[in-house]
Amino acid sequence: MTKLFFNKISVIDKEVLKIKTDQLLVVIDQDLWSKYKSKLTFLTHKDDQKKIFIWKAPSGEQVKNLNDYNQCLEFFIEKGIHRKAHMIAIGGGATSDFAGFVASTMLRGINWSIIPTTLLSQVDAAIGGKVAVNTKKYKNLIGAFHTPENVYISEEFLETLPKDELASGYGEVAKYSFLDADACTSIVKKKPLIETVKKCAEYKLALTERDLKESGERKLLNLGHTFGHGIEKIYNIPHGVAVFWGMALIFKVFGFEKELGKLNEVRESLDCDFGEEPWLNRTFPVKKLMGHVSKDKKTTSNTKIDLVLPNNKDQIEIKSYSLEEIESKLESQKNELRKFKL
Amino acid sequence: MTKLFFNKISVIDKEVLKIKTDQLLVVIDQDLWSKYKSKLTFLTHKDDQKKIFIWKAPSGEQVKNLNDYNQCLEFFIEKGIHRKAHMIAIGGGATSDFAGFVASTMLRGINWSIIPTTLLSQVDAAIGGKVAVNTKKYKNLIGAFHTPENVYISEEFLETLPKDELASGYGEVAKYSFLDADACTSIVKKKPLIETVKKCAEYKLALTERDLKESGERKLLNLGHTFGHGIEKIYNIPHGVAVFWGMALIFKVFGFEKELGKLNEVRESLDCDFGEEPWLNRTFPVKKLMGHVSKDKKTTSNTKIDLVLPNNKDQIEIKSYSLEEIESKLESQKNELRKFKL
Repeated sequence: MTKLFFNKISVIDKEVLKIKTDQLLVVIDQDLWSKYKSKLTFLTHKDDQKKIFIWKAPSGEQVKNLNDYNQCLEFFIEKGIHRKAHMIAIGGGATSDFAGFVASTMLRGINWSIIPTTLLSQVDAAIGGKVAVNTKKYKNLIGAFHTPENVYISEEFLETLPKDELASGYGEVAKYSFLDADACTSIVKKKPLIETVKKCAEYKLALTERDLKESGERKLLNLGHTFGHGIEKIYNIPHGVAVFWGMALIFKVFGFEKELGKLNEVRESLDCDFGEEPWLNRTFPVKKLMGHVSKDKKTTSNTKIDLVLPNNKDQIEIKSYSLEEIESKLESQKNELRKFKL
Repeated sequence: MTKLFFNKISVIDKEVLKIKTDQLLVVIDQDLWSKYKSKLTFLTHKDDQKKIFIWKAPSGEQVKNLNDYNQCLEFFIEKGIHRKAHMIAIGGGATSDFAGFVASTMLRGINWSIIPTTLLSQVDAAIGGKVAVNTKKYKNLIGAFHTPENVYISEEFLETLPKDELASGYGEVAKYSFLDADACTSIVKKKPLIETVKKCAEYKLALTERDLKESGERKLLNLGHTFGHGIEKIYNIPHGVAVFWGMALIFKVFGFEKELGKLNEVRESLDCDFGEEPWLNRTFPVKKLMGHVSKDKKTTSNTKIDLVLPNNKDQIEIKSYSLEEIESKLESQKNELRKFKL
């Protein structure tokens, strides 16, 4: 059971020291070190009862490789850590994906907690225990399920977040508007951002606690991702932004006009600039996109994949499709798609 | 739930092809390839419905490193594997420790099975889902709990096993005589080896299914290991042989004369040569041994470790000791210990 804490950074700072362990292992995005070391005073805490070891991680996605994984493990193991050590990840989703994978495999698994510092990680990556690093070519193919004990969320982290990082988070927030009525209401009624974050995080936590290993309903969270992962790679755009356009594309390709309307409305409520459609006025990359779709972890055989799509009762559901059928839909609409605007 | 199969190699060969998957990923100890490729015909099976990918592993313990882990992962991922792929490990405990760790982290975990080819792995490593690789200096500190679906055991593999590998297996077998009455009876009544193997494997399976993550009774399996791990490293002897001497040493140091007698009796029943006491007539290495004890994964804080020891009611139990107390016992007996013979 993960506990979600919503509070000021100064309160979170005190909470971390209450974790029952005599070894705190910190993995922090190195770009955040100088920014937060004075606010997160536990980082420089001196105490005979509690040793604090800090590994500064290469910033963002670049840390998610097996070489840094190896280095981080060796760093902590050389300190003589034991099974009741507790890891704290501080950073965005990449940092917590990485740190969680280290925590899940060090001494066959130690407990851990997260201080997510981006909108994307507060509503998505920090919740639900999916941790991973990348192979040379593919994202998140090496990993585990390892749920954190605590996730400490503060809106203060969002105040200084760069615009493109905020947009990336808003893409995932938009996704929840199709999955959870409370999140949707919070968005369209333009409630304060932290309230929407709370609805999204609580929805994801409840869902992932019912289905940690994604044998069923957890797959719903993949809405927008099957095309989104490919869009992210092909056009080199932020993850959440790609998920936003991934939703637009799958609704369009499978003919869900009403959902396209809702997606547009949600974008307006969020008052967020996702840029223009990345495929606009270019040759639509059917083959490249299908290359990514066929390598997706949600493929269930050599020929099939689970897709997340609306049904005719306005519900979102999981349905198995053949890769061939998806490719033929894209192929037949490719001339239309290159002009498609939400 | 792991299923244990006891049968001939020719029957196991057919069983493997019944596993429900269209992708079989084989990790085989390279030294076994030429020996068994004609007997395990599934290795060269050709079929459109079932793809078989084979990664030949560096032999024995040397495969258990992050570099080979990386290479093995990239090898399979490049083949375009999916979540319903099934891994088969063929070899001793090192090969299955390694393959299981790959299986546990590839695509966040795929199913797997083991064909253990050594006595040690049939009674110990292949059962219970502990998988791991080594860091530069320490054994098994990077790993996971990932139980195999099937363990296929054949006595035919034991017929050609080198003497020292058999002795290593017998060391762990001797351990079970203190934990399970059925295993003990099978040993002292000198039943056929495969019957003893069955008792040991079934005992370990039941125990580890009750306590997979070693929060309680699974720790009993650590009997002989706290000193054994150090003995293995210091004197460079096989794991199971070190466990045997680890039991002798801990019984001696904590004054359990009756158990020393039983250990001797078990050694005679097994008709196995564990060599002479490795510490005999040398300076007893208290500091070196404590160095290993303090780095053991069973330490629970900077100063304490769970030991497995008999109690006064002839039962084996888990008890927390301070590292200081263990060191002082060794230190005060060191002159006696260098002459101690079982």
